[in-house]
This record gives sequence, C-alpha cells and structure tokens, in this order.
Amino acid sequence: MSNDSRREVGIGMIGYKFMGKAHSHAYRDLPFFFDPQVVPRLRVIAGRDDQGVQAAALKMGWQSFETDWRKLLERKDVDVIDIVTPNNTHAEMAMAAAKAGKHIICEKPLAMSLDEAQKMVQAVEEAGVVHMICHNYRFAPAVQLAKQLIESGKLGRIYHIRATYLQDWIMDPSFPLSWRLRKDTTGTGALGDIGAHIIDLARFLIGEFTEVTGMMETFIRERPIGEMNGGLSATSSGNEMGTVDVDDASAFLARFDNGALGVFEATRFAGGNRNGNRFEINGEKGSIRWDLENMNLLRVYFSDDEPGLQGFRTINCTEETHPYAGAYWPSGHIIGYEHTFINLFSEFMNGIAEGRSPNPNFYDGFRNQAVLAAVEQSVRDKSWARVQS
Amino acid sequence: MSNDSRREVGIGMIGYKFMGKAHSHAYRDLPFFFDPQVVPRLRVIAGRDDQGVQAAALKMGWQSFETDWRKLLERKDVDVIDIVTPNNTHAEMAMAAAKAGKHIICEKPLAMSLDEAQKMVQAVEEAGVVHMICHNYRFAPAVQLAKQLIESGKLGRIYHIRATYLQDWIMDPSFPLSWRLRKDTTGTGALGDIGAHIIDLARFLIGEFTEVTGMMETFIRERPIGEMNGGLSATSSGNEMGTVDVDDASAFLARFDNGALGVFEATRFAGGNRNGNRFEINGEKGSIRWDLENMNLLRVYFSDDEPGLQGFRTINCTEETHPYAGAYWPSGHIIGYEHTFINLFSEFMNGIAEGRSPNPNFYDGFRNQAVLAAVEQSVRDKSWARVQS
Amino acid sequence: MSNDSRREVGIGMIGYKFMGKAHSHAYRDLPFFFDPQVVPRLRVIAGRDDQGVQAAALKMGWQSFETDWRKLLERKDVDVIDIVTPNNTHAEMAMAAAKAGKHIICEKPLAMSLDEAQKMVQAVEEAGVVHMICHNYRFAPAVQLAKQLIESGKLGRIYHIRATYLQDWIMDPSFPLSWRLRKDTTGTGALGDIGAHIIDLARFLIGEFTEVTGMMETFIRERPIGEMNGGLSATSSGNEMGTVDVDDASAFLARFDNGALGVFEATRFAGGNRNGNRFEINGEKGSIRWDLENMNLLRVYFSDDEPGLQGFRTINCTEETHPYAGAYWPSGHIIGYEHTFINLFSEFMNGIAEGRSPNPNFYDGFRNQAVLAAVEQSVRDKSWARVQS
Amino acid sequence: MSNDSRREVGIGMIGYKFMGKAHSHAYRDLPFFFDPQVVPRLRVIAGRDDQGVQAAALKMGWQSFETDWRKLLERKDVDVIDIVTPNNTHAEMAMAAAKAGKHIICEKPLAMSLDEAQKMVQAVEEAGVVHMICHNYRFAPAVQLAKQLIESGKLGRIYHIRATYLQDWIMDPSFPLSWRLRKDTTGTGALGDIGAHIIDLARFLIGEFTEVTGMMETFIRERPIGEMNGGLSATSSGNEMGTVDVDDASAFLARFDNGALGVFEATRFAGGNRNGNRFEINGEKGSIRWDLENMNLLRVYFSDDEPGLQGFRTINCTEETHPYAGAYWPSGHIIGYEHTFINLFSEFMNGIAEGRSPNPNFYDGFRNQAVLAAVEQSVRDKSWARVQS
Repeated sequence: MSNDSRREVGIGMIGYKFMGKAHSHAYRDLPFFFDPQVVPRLRVIAGRDDQGVQAAALKMGWQSFETDWRKLLERKDVDVIDIVTPNNTHAEMAMAAAKAGKHIICEKPLAMSLDEAQKMVQAVEEAGVVHMICHNYRFAPAVQLAKQLIESGKLGRIYHIRATYLQDWIMDPSFPLSWRLRKDTTGTGALGDIGAHIIDLARFLIGEFTEVTGMMETFIRERPIGEMNGGLSATSSGNEMGTVDVDDASAFLARFDNGALGVFEATRFAGGNRNGNRFEINGEKGSIRWDLENMNLLRVYFSDDEPGLQGFRTINCTEETHPYAGAYWPSGHIIGYEHTFINLFSEFMNGIAEGRSPNPNFYDGFRNQAVLAAVEQSVRDKSWARVQS
Repeated sequence: MSNDSRREVGIGMIGYKFMGKAHSHAYRDLPFFFDPQVVPRLRVIAGRDDQGVQAAALKMGWQSFETDWRKLLERKDVDVIDIVTPNNTHAEMAMAAAKAGKHIICEKPLAMSLDEAQKMVQAVEEAGVVHMICHNYRFAPAVQLAKQLIESGKLGRIYHIRATYLQDWIMDPSFPLSWRLRKDTTGTGALGDIGAHIIDLARFLIGEFTEVTGMMETFIRERPIGEMNGGLSATSSGNEMGTVDVDDASAFLARFDNGALGVFEATRFAGGNRNGNRFEINGEKGSIRWDLENMNLLRVYFSDDEPGLQGFRTINCTEETHPYAGAYWPSGHIIGYEHTFINLFSEFMNGIAEGRSPNPNFYDGFRNQAVLAAVEQSVRDKSWARVQS
Repeated sequence: MSNDSRREVGIGMIGYKFMGKAHSHAYRDLPFFFDPQVVPRLRVIAGRDDQGVQAAALKMGWQSFETDWRKLLERKDVDVIDIVTPNNTHAEMAMAAAKAGKHIICEKPLAMSLDEAQKMVQAVEEAGVVHMICHNYRFAPAVQLAKQLIESGKLGRIYHIRATYLQDWIMDPSFPLSWRLRKDTTGTGALGDIGAHIIDLARFLIGEFTEVTGMMETFIRERPIGEMNGGLSATSSGNEMGTVDVDDASAFLARFDNGALGVFEATRFAGGNRNGNRFEINGEKGSIRWDLENMNLLRVYFSDDEPGLQGFRTINCTEETHPYAGAYWPSGHIIGYEHTFINLFSEFMNGIAEGRSPNPNFYDGFRNQAVLAAVEQSVRDKSWARVQS
Repeated sequence: MSNDSRREVGIGMIGYKFMGKAHSHAYRDLPFFFDPQVVPRLRVIAGRDDQGVQAAALKMGWQSFETDWRKLLERKDVDVIDIVTPNNTHAEMAMAAAKAGKHIICEKPLAMSLDEAQKMVQAVEEAGVVHMICHNYRFAPAVQLAKQLIESGKLGRIYHIRATYLQDWIMDPSFPLSWRLRKDTTGTGALGDIGAHIIDLARFLIGEFTEVTGMMETFIRERPIGEMNGGLSATSSGNEMGTVDVDDASAFLARFDNGALGVFEATRFAGGNRNGNRFEINGEKGSIRWDLENMNLLRVYFSDDEPGLQGFRTINCTEETHPYAGAYWPSGHIIGYEHTFINLFSEFMNGIAEGRSPNPNFYDGFRNQAVLAAVEQSVRDKSWARVQS
C-alpha cells in the first residue's frame, strides 16, 4: 500500500555521524508526522570509511552507500545533497552540488570564511537550486512562538537580547584534539560551532547585526591527538599532544540595526551546562525567555497584564495552536531535540516542491558568517567591528 | 540493502487513534535507535471505520488494513497483536489473540474489572505467548534512573510516595461525552485512565500496595453527546446531552507492603496542568522528584551530601550512562513523550526474541487492576479496602 | 523624641524559644514598617528556667522577666498575654488570661483536644477579650493575594486543593524525644504541628471541611530522651531511650462544604524538604500554587488567557499593590519568614484598637482542632469522619 | 533591664529615603539577631526637608534630627556617619566626616569619579577611621557560601563569570527624570547604580578586573521633570520635560587577573525583571548560580559528583552551618532583602570594635569605581580599557 500521489525526492547525504543521524532520522519521521508536498527517500550516503559508512547506511535505512562523495552528484535518483561533514569541506561540496543542479542542505556554519560563504551563495544562486542551512533551533515550537510574538508587535520595540550557548563536553583536559578543536577543519571553536546558533536565533528574532566587539579564549592549549565518535564523545589515540588553535570560549557585545543591544556568550567550559542554549529578549511591552534544555517551554512576560498579576508565564508549547506542535502529540506531551530537524526538513521539502529556498538558507548562512567574521576581526583589533551586509 | 540477519515479527494493530499513532511510530523508530533482536514489521491495522483506518494505514506506513479485527488473528504473517482500543474491548481481543497464539501488547488499564483481568492473565499463560501492558512512563530514562537508585539502596528504606496525575482537557463543560467518559466503554474515568499510570509507577518503584482508601467525584454530570478525535481533542455532535457516569477526579491514600505510605491523586480538573504526571519519593537516605512535563529531569536529594551543600540535584537524564539515553542524542539534547514507547517496544521485541514477557506485563496489569478495584471498593464502603494479591 | 499620639499596649509573653523569638521580633519591627493604631511594648516575659528567661529577655529587649507565668496576669501594665509554650499548656494559660481580662494571642494548635478548644473559645467569649491564634502563613503577601483571587471569583468554582507540609528535621534516629514528639505535651506530632498550618490555609482559602479520612504513621518508634534548643535543633541527654507516641507522618483526604476535594499530607520524614509548606488550588477558571520556601512567589494560571499563551505566571508578590508588601521594600526585594508574623501582629494590634478579634482567632483554632480531631477519629475507625462544626 | 556590658556607638545618618530605611532597620534589628561587640544607637538623622526628616526620624526611631548634615559632625554622641544621599554628595560628606574623626559607612557607588574616590580613600586613611561601603549583596548567606566554595578551591580554577542586574522600573516613558537619571547627581545610570553591585560581587568572588570593553545606551531620552519617593517609585511634577543624560542600559566584557572571562549587563529596561541581580560562575571543578529574587538559594554543580548523578543542587542557604544564617530561623525559613544589611552592619560594628575596616570598604569602593571608569572610557574610545589598580 503506497501513497502514489506524493512526489518523491532522492536524498544523497555526505557524512554520517552526529548530524548524519539527526538528518537521517528527520527524513524518516517526516512523512509520519507531516504531510509534506514531496517525500524524501534515503537513496545514498557517503563517507570515507568503507565499513563505517556501510554500517551507518544499514542502521539508518539508506538504500546504498559510497566512499567518494562525488559519486552522489552523478546519480539521477539523487535530487538533494545533504552536507553534514566538517566545516572545511562545506564550500567545495556545496559548490559542486550546485553545479550538478542538486538542491542543497548544509550544516552550519556555512563556511570557513566570509569569502567562501559568498562564493557558496553565488553558486546556488547561479544554479537556481533550493538551498537551506541547518539552523535547527529556529524550529522549536517555542522559538517559533517567540518569533510570532515579536513579529506581531506583542513585545513592542525590542531593547535587549542576551543569549548564551554554554556547554561543558571538553572541560576534561584529556578530551582529544578532534576536528572540532582544529582551526583547519573547523575555522573557529565555540564561536562557529555553538555561537553560530545563537547568532542565528538573534537574526531570526531580532534582525540584523550592525557591529560587534568580542573576546576569545583558549583555556586548555594542549590536548592529546584523537577523534570524536558519533555524538560529542571522543577517544584519544595515544600520548601524542597537539595544540588547540581555536577558542574554548567566546563572548561579544552587539548592536542591531533596529537599535537593540545584544550580549552573547558561547563556551565549552561552563560545567554543568550540557546544552545551555538560552536567550532572553526584552521589549517595550514584554519579555521572553527560552532554554534548549527545556525546549518545549517559552517563558513570556507582558507588561500590560493586570498590575499585581504580572509575571513570566511558563507556556508549554505543545498545544495544537503552537507552531508545528499539532503534528505531534496532545498538550503537555513534550517533543525533543530531534523534532527541530523534522520541522526544518518539512520546510525544506515544501521549499523543493515550490521551488523556493526557505529561511534559513545560504543567505542566512552568509549573514551569520559575517557576524562570526566581525567578531574575529574585533578580537584581533581589540575594537568594535562593522558587520558586513 | 537490507539487514537480513535480524528476525522480523509481523505486527497487527487493533485501533489507530492517539495510542495507535504512538505505537506505530515506536515500531518505525525502534530499529533506527536500537538494535533489537527482532525487528517489527507493520503488517496490518484494524478499525471499524473503513475510510478512517485506510487513511491511518497510509499515513502511518502499515502494509494493509482490515475493518474486522478478527481477520488479524488468522494471518500467518502476524506474530503480535497490539490492542489500542477502548478498555471494554481489551479482554475479548486479548483472549482471542492468545488463543490464536499471538504475542500481545495491550494498552492500559488491562480490563474493565479484576475478574476480566484475571481471565486475561490465564489466557496468555495457557497460550504461552509473550505479553506486555503499555505503561510507557516506566521507560522514561529519568524514571529508570529512579528505579536504579531505589533498587541499589541509595535512598534507603522508603517512607513516602506522593504522586499526582493532573490534567485539564475536559474542564470545559462543552467537551463531549466521549468513550473516555462513559462507564460502559472505559470502566472508570480519571482513575483508570491516568490514575492507573501513577499506580504503575508506584508499583514499579516502591512495590506492592496492601490497602487503600479513596474518594471519587464527578464535577460536571451532564455533557453533550460526541466523540474524541485522535489525541485528546473532541467534537460534539449536537445538542443532545448525556450523563457522565465516571469520575472526573479520584484520590486515595495507600499503604505498601514495605511499610511506605502513598498519597495519590488523578484528576482532569486541574487547570493549567496539561500532563501533570508527577511523583516525589522520600527514603531514609534521600528523595527523588519527577515530572512528566519535564520528563528528562530527575531531581535527587542525598542526605549524606556534605552538610551545607545538601539540596536537590537537577539531573538531565540524557547522559550516555543513563538508561536508554545512549540510544539517542548527546547529553543535554532532550527526548520526548514518544521515546517512552520506543524504549518499551525495544523491551517487548527482546522479550519476543527470548520467549519471556518483560515487565510490565499482564500480571502487572492484573495487580494494577486490583488497586483500581480496591479504590472503587473503598469509595463504595467509605472505608479502607485490601488490595487483592 | 517619641510618638505620643499612639496608644501603647503592654505585652506579657509566656515562653521564649523559637516562637518566642519570632513573636518578640515581630512586636519590635511592627511600628517600623506599619502604622498600627496601638503600639506594643515588650513588658515582661515568663519562663521556668531563671537563667534562660533572663538571657532571652535581655537579648530580645523585654523590660522584665518572671519564672511564674501567673505573675503576668496580675500586672496592670500587661494588656496582652502571648502564649508560645507547648500545646498542653495553652488551655490553662489562655483561660486564666481571659479571666484576668487580658487580650490573648496563642500559638497553634489551639489545644490538646476539641473539648479543650471549646472551653477556650467560651472563656474568651465570656471575658470579651480580643483573641487570635498564630497561623502566620496566612499573612504571606502571596497567600493573601491567593485569597483575593479566590474571593473575587477569578478562579471560579473551586474543585481541588492539594497541600503538603513536608519537613525532615527528625529523620535522624538520634534526634531526641523532645516535647514535640511526646503525646502528653503536644497532642499529635506532624498532624498538629504542621498539618494544622495547611488545614488553616485550606480553611482560609477554600472554606470549611465537612469530612475527612486519614492515616498516621510513626516510622521511628524509639528515640533517646532529650530536649530541643531554640529553633528546631535538639540535644539528647544520654543513652536513655523513650517511645515516640505521636505521628511522624499523617495524610488525609477531605471534602469541603463547597464541594471541593482536598488531599493533605504532613510529614517530618521527607528528606530534602526543609520547610515544604505547599499548596495547589484548582478552580473552574484558574489555578494557583504556593511554596513557603519561595514564599514571595505566587504561581497563577488563568484559563481565559489567550489560547497559546496560557501558562502559570510566576508573580513576585513584592509590588506595592500586593497585600502588606507596600510596608517593606521596592518590587523584587523579597521578605522572609519573620514578616508573616509582623503582618499578623499588625492585624492583632488593629483588632485591639477596635475591640474585635481578627481572623484567625480562637474560633478558627476551634475549627482547626475539629479537623485534627476528625482525622484522628478517622484513623482510629479506618473510615471517614464528619468534622464537627 | 539593660545590657550594660556592651559598648554603644552613636549613629548619625545623612539621608532618609530608600537606603535610609534599610540602614535604620538594620541598626535596630542587629542586636536582636547578633551579638555585636558594639551596639548602634540611632542618635540623629539629617535631611534638607524639615518635615520629611522629622517624620522619618519619628517613624524609624531616631532620637533627633537635623536639616544641616554638618551639625552631625559636631556632635560628640555621634561616632559614625552613615551616608545614604545621592552620589554627588558622597565625597564632600565623607571627607568632612573623616576630618571630624567619625567612622563612615557610605552607600555605593563611592563617588562621582575615580579621582573623587581616590581622595575619599586618602581622607579615611589619614583620619584613621573605620570605613565601609554598602555593597550589601555580598552578605546574602548564599553569596557568602559561594565565596567559601571558591576560596576553598572546590570549584578549581575559575573560567567564567556572567552577571546581570536587570530591572524594569523606569521603562514607562512617564517615569520622571529623578536624581537617579541625572548625570550631575548620579554620575552614571544603570552602570553605577546596579552595575556597581555586580562588579562588587565579581571582585568579591573572582578577583580584580584587568580590562574591559563596554557599551551604553539610553533608550528614552526625554522624560518629565520629577522626583522619586522612597523606594523606587516616583512622581513627576508636571509637563516640563528634561533630557536623560545617563545610561538606561550598559554591558561590558571583562578580563580578570586570574585569567577568568566576565560578561556583565546592567539595565533598567528588562521588563519582568524586578530585581534580576544574577550570576553564574564556572570553574574547573564546578559551577554556581545565584539570583537575588530567590536570594536564599545557591545552585551548585560539582563535576566530580558520581557520573549519571551530576546536576545543579538547589541549596537553601538557611541551615545553621550557612554564613550568618544561624542568627535567624531554622532551616527552610527564609530571610529577605533587609537581612543583607543586618549582616553587613554586624561586620561594621565588629570592625569598629576592633579598629579595622572590614571589606567592602573605601578601597573596594575605589576599585569598583576604577572598573566603572574603565567601562566609561572603553565606551568613549570604542575599545578596551585597562582598569586602574
């Protein structure tokens, strides 16, 4: 029994670890919960390690696998290239995929530099393919509700955003020098990995950054050589040590073109914070707070609530009326991390059906990269830096 | 590319609404996250409404559908009968399935009466089939951690459990008299629907009940005739009114065979509590608290923590070391409601592979029913009632 | 420089430990924060231990002390008798004070039995003196706000109250058999000490109890002989053991004359709960939650908040508009435990000025005692018991 | 009955509004809760408004009042000058008081400029008087516990502090241009008023600042002329408008001499945050969080807690073992805002008895001013600024 009326698109994914798992799962669950205009099919997955990629394909339900990612571009049954590899490979892969006429979804940050990001935008533009960047946290129902509140004017003029992304998974000095800690593979450390997420949330909710000034620090400068497993755990391969050349922690002040002030901090040295992606936004008429670790909740304050009865409301964004929530379970039955991807991919599929690139797309990736670049510039200059627009 | 080494079992499911969706999803996601010894295949789904069941089958990925549930028992490619229909149908279906030699998983509460439950236990016992009852909340990683703490003696002798299941979805007097509000289809109201869940958690964590005394109340006695949609929403069909003959709210005191005291409350009239399944357990050496609405968190207090540094710890049970959590995402990336089912079904599949009935099974369903029956008895007698063992 | 326009009343207090400190402080701070119609003067304090009472008098600012409490009744400069002694002394002292024409404030529970309580009510009635019972938690601004919300109809018809008073200060088996653990001095254990507080809150907020059924338990039955210091700490005097003949824990179900259901639990064996006086009330249109450990906060849910924006508000009851809060500090500058007494005593002083007995007074003490008596009766009978009105 | 053995010191206070109330109350309550080596006597209070100061004196229990603050310096029965006036008067008063040989306690920030602060330090040094600055939040028991944890090495090397002081009392554009919003009377706005508090907490807990870079903003630039009442409420006197020349909001990044990074934000435009003085500190071995609005709680995380049982503990710092807490009530009976002053004044009295100036004193005020000055400098230069040491 099959649903013939729905158009299928073939997916080819490059990479298969933490993000590969999250994306694969999202493709699989998508038609169960949503009615996307096109349905993804898991055609082929690519990875350099023959055994690793085979096992991943089998486990995650891909129809085939390759060890050379360029093979995916040649396949007629592949409509979409999904890039979940280290950051230093994004540009080459995305530009090749665009050239091959494939729609593209790429993990964040988009590129290693603003220049690279610019070229990637040009490539997808010229090719006319649908493109997205995988800033999944926009797609938590609570964050979408935050967006609605701001856009509808319910918070009035926005004065402040303060956002942190606090983690602690590399605090142990024996955690190895994996690709996420090396400049050549990742560009920056905490800044580009998790800082990029809170920059995206700020752009989504508040608007464009105009200038920033920041600081970056590496607390542990020597680590054993080694690599990550899937997820965020890792194994070191021995006694050889290497130098960490990216930031363990970054923070920056920002101004937005609508006059708002921003304070941002991304660190992997905040013990006890496993995944502390949090923000508070203060507007003329109200405030909102969100925390990824309790991602279904949005805390909302309205200054025009009756005097004496004012206070932050704790809203469990699992009602049928909440964005995306109706696809899942009844009120109070929470969803989790993986659902942010399912929601994002539902937009991607609809974008493909309609021939448009939903936000966040490569333009958003470029703007995000511009903020990252300006923060780095400001740190080098010990001064404020304009964000390129 | 397929994984031939794994044995498959064919599933036949009766019913297709809220629980049907939760079960179907769990079967689908199970092999992605776990490596069960046997893999479920969604063979056939049964429902009385031809169009409804067809649409559900298509949407949820079932290979075929039937409008007569008995047809499922005749199919050789069906190894498991999954019962997600109203409570008044469980006994007949389960006994027929057992007779047909099918493994059975049944939604809770097991039966309409203790007598029925007893017969169901006998039926599965005689048939030698694998059986489980779907008390999914046991399978939240935080609840499993609670179990480990208690079993390992870390809390010492248990003094107290207080548990609530607070909801508010029928507070509107215009909510219709659906099957969940009629004695002939459901047995009891809040008591059997949500009270049964906290009884199961108490049995899982503390042990057997010995005696109870309770009260039951129906706050809104007349409602429009109508039926539920999937989930917990509903539509009334017109102006005709009917009488609510089950409890809107129930509460009871309990004693356990290990000397602990219990206080339980289940209500659908606790505004603002969408899904307030919560418990606190106090032992000689520590305490734990859990809340389904933040189901990834377990709050734990140890009285032997250093004086001055004692306090409830908020543990995000998403570490690789936490029960079931390693199958999903890195620390701090939360899971949701549906994962409790995936975890439960992973145990069910392993039980089938090994020819044993994992807990909670029909015996647990019977013991649960015995508590429900004793509460009802105590309300009738305005006295304490022994729980049949 | 003195404020001659304000009438003074002389206070004579019997007892000087934990409650003696709380009351003494309240009298002292009262004129600083409030403008009571009459001003208390700390004339004389009585205690059996000569040195102890002298030290207390000096420390707490009393003008004189006595070792025989009856001396206080003879003093012309004493207008008020304040009773903060063990429960078995309340009746004798209060009746003598009434006979002597003194206004009376008495710690809770009022008496050792309902009969005693009845006599105390008659005594103050016949004497025509002003009387109050010291249920101080009513006077937290957040609780007063709760009262306003209920009385104004903002929560609609009340369906539920669930209240706990959880403590853990006697969980250590070496904690001595102080007066608070002996039936002859205290009447009941957790029930009368802390259960009485949540009964009072329920009466204040919901209304009168009609019937109850409960259970009581003593987990540790033998303890070393010894006595409490001030506060809730204690020293045992040696190796001699004695039998605990009061309840370590009590719980009961209740029905109210307005149709609401109540679930109550008072225990001193809930590890990690230092002072867990908490309640949740659910009404037709909204719900409220309160917790003494964060006593400035009231959490309020309104079901008529805009759909999608519904959630419990966390209200910090420190606004000028909140009851009693204007007497203290600006918004967000919290008050503490002692302020509940200051607020209560401000009412007491105004009652004296106006010749009326503010609530909660001896009638409230009697009604409270009636609930305590009914719970004890229900435990003896293993049945429901009517609450005498 | 009096306690003759204790030495008395006479207090003369200049100013009598919000801080005047807090200080007066603290002097009064101090001997009740503590056993200070010297006991304060409320001799005289000064204010320019004859009627206002008289009423305040009467209400708060001062023996006399003056309208010329210089009169206080001449009085032999005045040993201590307490300065609670607007910031632009601190230097003149403190230097005159030092010259008169009086001990001094001064509200924060110490001065209008670093130069002024320097002169004040010289003055008290030359005079040899005891001096303190009133950074009261150090004296919350939870903050003192934080200090103990850091000093004892329990958190290891400190990596991060992030601190906010968020308020919302001037968000209404009709709130008048009171002295707290005028540069000539206050120096800076949010920065010096509330930013100074979090700078002090950071200096207390982490150590000295080395460099900073900040931003400042005024969201509402025109306000009606008017003045504050006591507390933080205010009345405008009419339609005349004036220009706000201080910051509504300030934020800055910081580096500390021990290598830690700091992120700070002080704003009066964070709706719903009545008094959001909060910090989180992350160290090598653990983390702590504190929030003034729940000031009794310290949240503490230890990375060497057993794997799987790690999480922030919520510690109610009301145990007898917690700093200052033993002076008050039993565990779980919380204290409030005013107690931070009582604790601070207990140190001040002991300092006077022993002839030493406890921290925070004028040196701390100077160091704090140096940070404020560096932030202002960095804003002017759009660059980092060194903090003068």
